[in-house]
Amino acid sequence: MNAQNLFENIKRKKSFLCVGLDTDIKKIPQHLLETEDPMFEFNRIVVDNTQEYTVAYKPNLAFYECMGVQGWVSLQKTVDYIRTNYPDQFIIADAKRGDIGNTSQMYAKAFFEKMNFDAVTVAPYMGEDSVSPFLGYKDKWVILLALTSNKGAEDFQYFKNPEGEMLFEKVLRNSQKWADHNSMMYVVGATKAEKLAEIRKIVPNHFLLVPGVGAQGGSLQEVAEFGMTSTCGLLVNSSRAIIYVDTTPDFASHVKKAAMEVRDEMEILLKKKNLM
Amino acid sequence: MNAQNLFENIKRKKSFLCVGLDTDIKKIPQHLLETEDPMFEFNRIVVDNTQEYTVAYKPNLAFYECMGVQGWVSLQKTVDYIRTNYPDQFIIADAKRGDIGNTSQMYAKAFFEKMNFDAVTVAPYMGEDSVSPFLGYKDKWVILLALTSNKGAEDFQYFKNPEGEMLFEKVLRNSQKWADHNSMMYVVGATKAEKLAEIRKIVPNHFLLVPGVGAQGGSLQEVAEFGMTSTCGLLVNSSRAIIYVDTTPDFASHVKKAAMEVRDEMEILLKKKNLM
Repeated sequence: MNAQNLFENIKRKKSFLCVGLDTDIKKIPQHLLETEDPMFEFNRIVVDNTQEYTVAYKPNLAFYECMGVQGWVSLQKTVDYIRTNYPDQFIIADAKRGDIGNTSQMYAKAFFEKMNFDAVTVAPYMGEDSVSPFLGYKDKWVILLALTSNKGAEDFQYFKNPEGEMLFEKVLRNSQKWADHNSMMYVVGATKAEKLAEIRKIVPNHFLLVPGVGAQGGSLQEVAEFGMTSTCGLLVNSSRAIIYVDTTPDFASHVKKAAMEVRDEMEILLKKKNLM
Repeated sequence: MNAQNLFENIKRKKSFLCVGLDTDIKKIPQHLLETEDPMFEFNRIVVDNTQEYTVAYKPNLAFYECMGVQGWVSLQKTVDYIRTNYPDQFIIADAKRGDIGNTSQMYAKAFFEKMNFDAVTVAPYMGEDSVSPFLGYKDKWVILLALTSNKGAEDFQYFKNPEGEMLFEKVLRNSQKWADHNSMMYVVGATKAEKLAEIRKIVPNHFLLVPGVGAQGGSLQEVAEFGMTSTCGLLVNSSRAIIYVDTTPDFASHVKKAAMEVRDEMEILLKKKNLM
């Protein structure tokens, strides 16, 4: 999927919502624990009930890895299920990988060949040759960490050089030389919505993956105001506020409603920018 | 295992060698492909033939993840095999993880609870709250990326503030407030051996995990000269130069010899520093 395809999906769905599949065995509705593969079963129901209102899904790898081999099985089944039943969905491995070249090549193989993800989140600390192996796949994407939404973002991402350029700005500037807006996106934390205007000066065209709307406290209106481009340029992620909105046996209808409400808000924001 | 235990093992084994299990199905001896689990079988033979000369093993997660579910099975079996048969070995998950707090907590659970690793490599980009969840386990370790051995290290790790402090130096300074030398080590690339003296001024006591000796071109003598402390303070990793030294059916004896030769060199270096 390239940037134009993604924008077409956004217009058709009236949504730039990404649902984060941070599937925690301790938080899912307890009646699902009786099923053969509770994590997959939960994901299947969440996907079936939200796909109408979303353009992307983002399994968070940590939640699967902590279940060992069985978690990896559930993850693979989830990706296959989405790919087969909802082929227009953009599937992101939220994996925060990044290593020396030959190792990043293996991670790329894991996420783009062994599992059929569209994109993988990558940490920039090790530089270009740790990122570029992920860029050798047609229609596959790197989503590079720039400014994250956690408190620790302040520890190093705001580190400033004598010219006043901050590390996250340097990451944004340098990495644009590595790939264009059809294969690179950036993670920009929504708790820093006021930063989005500055960030848009550095990356006017690239899609931004914005986590942290919802449980992490960001405002969707502000994100759209400061971050939206003429081709939307935003994927806004919500995890806990949608997938754990209810934990009764009737959770599916509540999950659906939560996703629909976000979509409705997004539709207004897209119209406001004359993108629909 | 704490730092003192590790030093005792180093003295007893006369070695500060860590063998990297970057197990690539395309590079292992071809006769192993007929076995039920070739990656595990390769690792088992490598471990059996090197354990006498090593104090640590470092499976590189990418090489297992790219094999999907089966890779995860091989990894789990490898960790269990080492833990059961050679309980004094320090086992490092070379995973380069790091995410917001609740997600890092899940990664910590994956590597320290679900699998019984002693340590995990962590990327510092997201700051303290992305690292601290790994620090809540007694006798378990974070090995934080500081200065890596790849070319891309220059892209951001040398980013300098107005006082001339570089990012990797800031990472070393700040992170020492998060944990002491019994639960934190640092990755410092051996291709920058001349940097080790400067790094030792910042972190005089912590263990350093030094990759890049061998295939990546570092010199063991220089690493010891500039990096060794009164409690050794070094784990030097070698992967390809040992595990792929031979690919015939008789590879085990060559792997053993390669590890022994590194150990012999390390013994001389430990004696030179009067640590034995």
